[in-house]
Amino acid sequence: MKMIHSCLRVLDLERSKTFYEEVFELKEYSRHIFDSFTLLYLRHPGLEFELELTANHDREEPYDTGDGYGHLAFVTDDLEAALARYHATGAEEVSIKSLDHQGALLGRFFFATDPDGYKIEVLSREGRFSDF
Amino acid sequence: MKMIHSCLRVLDLERSKTFYEEVFELKEYSRHIFDSFTLLYLRHPGLEFELELTANHDREEPYDTGDGYGHLAFVTDDLEAALARYHATGAEEVSIKSLDHQGALLGRFFFATDPDGYKIEVLSREGRFSDF
Repeated sequence: MKMIHSCLRVLDLERSKTFYEEVFELKEYSRHIFDSFTLLYLRHPGLEFELELTANHDREEPYDTGDGYGHLAFVTDDLEAALARYHATGAEEVSIKSLDHQGALLGRFFFATDPDGYKIEVLSREGRFSDF
Repeated sequence: MKMIHSCLRVLDLERSKTFYEEVFELKEYSRHIFDSFTLLYLRHPGLEFELELTANHDREEPYDTGDGYGHLAFVTDDLEAALARYHATGAEEVSIKSLDHQGALLGRFFFATDPDGYKIEVLSREGRFSDF
């Protein structure tokens, strides 16, 4: 078995696609349009794991993101550049944080919020995440 | 950038770990215990993408899974065996479904529900998902 995608329901497919392209460097890989919903798969070029965005055509009210789903995480060599791209979307300013564990760096990261309110963790390729 | 994990908050780390091991063949890769929370990373041996389970130590009430988060998806060569493993946990019976798009098979799959209520899609390595 293998994990191959994470799915989020979104209100406005084009708004979400633009956000994930501009901040996270994802590209549309395939789109499947059905009567009542559309599935959009985004990938990083050359990589297999996908973000699946589902748009239900008759949905108008915002989705309830609950308090259980945590986040999807990305790793990058340039955390500051990713943060700059995030802020360039007009998002509320967030800052880079670090988490240590047993005296060593576990991770350096920030949390972004996508257009539907889902949290996205962006980690620097350091600490526990240096080998990804 | 690369997607490296999906995080879910869970009430009972050992219950969730057992579920993901038994049904999805994940294994504990690392565990980081902090005062107020524990992070558990699960992987398929030889693969990099992780399921991160977060347990907040003082959390007692069930998490609200909302209606926005969709699912994490797995692919397998043997969908029937995965379904049998899922049913062996005592879960409510579900059936395998297919989705066609433009006259061709898009996917053959079932949806499992994890101990905290999160949906997990299990896809057969067929149709759109034959090359994963």
